[in-house]
Amino acid sequence: MRAIVYTAAGGPEVIALRDVPAPEPGAEQVRVRVGAAGLNRADVIQRRGRYPAPPGWPKDIPGLEYAGEVESLGPGVTRWRVADRVMGLVGGGGHAEFVVVHQDEALPIPAGMSLSDAAAIPESFLTAYDALVLRGRLQPGDRVLIHAVGSGLGTAATQLARRLGAGSVLGTSRTGEKLDRARAYGLDIGIDTSHTGFRDAVTPPVNVVLDVLGGPAFADNLAVLAPRGRLVLLGFLLGGAVQTDIDVILRKRLEVIGTAMRTRALEERVPLVREFTERVIPWFAGGAGAPLQPVVGATFPMSEMAAAHAFMEQNESFGKIVLTW
Amino acid sequence: MRAIVYTAAGGPEVIALRDVPAPEPGAEQVRVRVGAAGLNRADVIQRRGRYPAPPGWPKDIPGLEYAGEVESLGPGVTRWRVADRVMGLVGGGGHAEFVVVHQDEALPIPAGMSLSDAAAIPESFLTAYDALVLRGRLQPGDRVLIHAVGSGLGTAATQLARRLGAGSVLGTSRTGEKLDRARAYGLDIGIDTSHTGFRDAVTPPVNVVLDVLGGPAFADNLAVLAPRGRLVLLGFLLGGAVQTDIDVILRKRLEVIGTAMRTRALEERVPLVREFTERVIPWFAGGAGAPLQPVVGATFPMSEMAAAHAFMEQNESFGKIVLTW
Repeated sequence: MRAIVYTAAGGPEVIALRDVPAPEPGAEQVRVRVGAAGLNRADVIQRRGRYPAPPGWPKDIPGLEYAGEVESLGPGVTRWRVADRVMGLVGGGGHAEFVVVHQDEALPIPAGMSLSDAAAIPESFLTAYDALVLRGRLQPGDRVLIHAVGSGLGTAATQLARRLGAGSVLGTSRTGEKLDRARAYGLDIGIDTSHTGFRDAVTPPVNVVLDVLGGPAFADNLAVLAPRGRLVLLGFLLGGAVQTDIDVILRKRLEVIGTAMRTRALEERVPLVREFTERVIPWFAGGAGAPLQPVVGATFPMSEMAAAHAFMEQNESFGKIVLTW
Repeated sequence: MRAIVYTAAGGPEVIALRDVPAPEPGAEQVRVRVGAAGLNRADVIQRRGRYPAPPGWPKDIPGLEYAGEVESLGPGVTRWRVADRVMGLVGGGGHAEFVVVHQDEALPIPAGMSLSDAAAIPESFLTAYDALVLRGRLQPGDRVLIHAVGSGLGTAATQLARRLGAGSVLGTSRTGEKLDRARAYGLDIGIDTSHTGFRDAVTPPVNVVLDVLGGPAFADNLAVLAPRGRLVLLGFLLGGAVQTDIDVILRKRLEVIGTAMRTRALEERVPLVREFTERVIPWFAGGAGAPLQPVVGATFPMSEMAAAHAFMEQNESFGKIVLTW
């Protein structure tokens, strides 16, 4: 099969499309012919030589999610049939023509949705759901602050927060136009951080923050949280080094919760996939509220992965960047 | 009634014993004649002019816990009768001859226990239980690190961790003799931090840390936690300013949980008091395990409160400092 490989650690020029052996499905595994796959910051960081794949996943093929059709079944598969349309997370190997996954970690693609739209769902929506509901324990009426609200994760979190009954959804971006576009997905208050911080703009305080920034945003996140608020850390685009005063963590009884999808073991991913399948997948069809929408900001052929990386590093995409075969 | 008042912010010399009006019990409140009351770090910090009492509690009388006898009942009290022996937390006012509390936030004193022993229970054991079970979500087999393990809180947390099925209880102290004494209460591994840090001594990593140190201990606490570990912050004796790298919080998916008893509203204290009364109070009588023991390191008459403060500031006490009328 064809797959993306990184020939070295470095810039987009290390990205190559190679022929490699296709993976074989084992017991209770399915092999999926990938039609489309999202690009994530983690792929860029892995390309630079950091964030290697966790044990058990392809070390040499990047890609953390996929959407496609079940192509063959390993022994003991009962959940899927050949040609079923599925999507999901992988610890690596998503940027390839085939992925092999356990039958219980694949999700059904919502009826009528294209594979390139579906490819924008797994990382963004599973991460956002996990962060808001399971880590951040969002309650109806809660005020939520979502950093980088124009990203795939940000647009997913905005829609989910709305659907989960958040009182207000606040979001930051360094691009005013992204804030305008995010309003269509349920953003109430957009905070343009191109020239100033967000600390003074968040008032009254919020109950949950989803952060991908880190660095100087860390102390500001603590400052804008209400008593018993939850700061969910999902990344540190501005750097990992932080200085802060933990007095505020005690005084307001805050929680700082680090999370990541990639390193989770199968036993932990499966209950999340099940809960998401039962509760959230129906929301893409509508039901009692506006339908959830995967937000695809740009689509590239898989053969132009290097251009897709370069585009991501320009931070100009609104929503997900998706690669298609 | 007589009560301790701080005549100004400052050293132990600002402490005075004064005659003040006794509080009157309102609806569903009881008035307790205090026999003994614990001294806490928070009292010392309040004396220095920081950490004022939360709204609804005496501003001018310190003291965060009490043990005594119900002296009179407000309207609607059904839970207690005059002369019942009770103990509990207050947001302030414990260093007085009488306190007034809601009937549902008082706890029964274990049968046969002296008031001065009982006075060593509420802050230490409720805080430790809340921190280990409700904040730290201690699981049987978990490894726990308890800083300042020779303190009232530390000796309570050690015993509770043991009782809750912790796999190993590790503790730090800057006094080797306190580590030796803490072994009698269930400490497995004592780490003397008089000359070096604890980071290298904690191996393998732990699942829960109870910290009262803050400052430079913060980053070390994150370093010694296992994946999905919980750092419960209860104080910052070494200072609130911290520098760290949040990379470790994400990578290991850690949680940093700030907590404090004093600022909690009645609605939040009552369920904790109920759970503690049903589950933990019987453990002071034994049951299936060694009986819990309040650890009283020193007892002073209430009239010598200044000496008690000075003693606490020398950090030489093992266990609680208790004041008696």
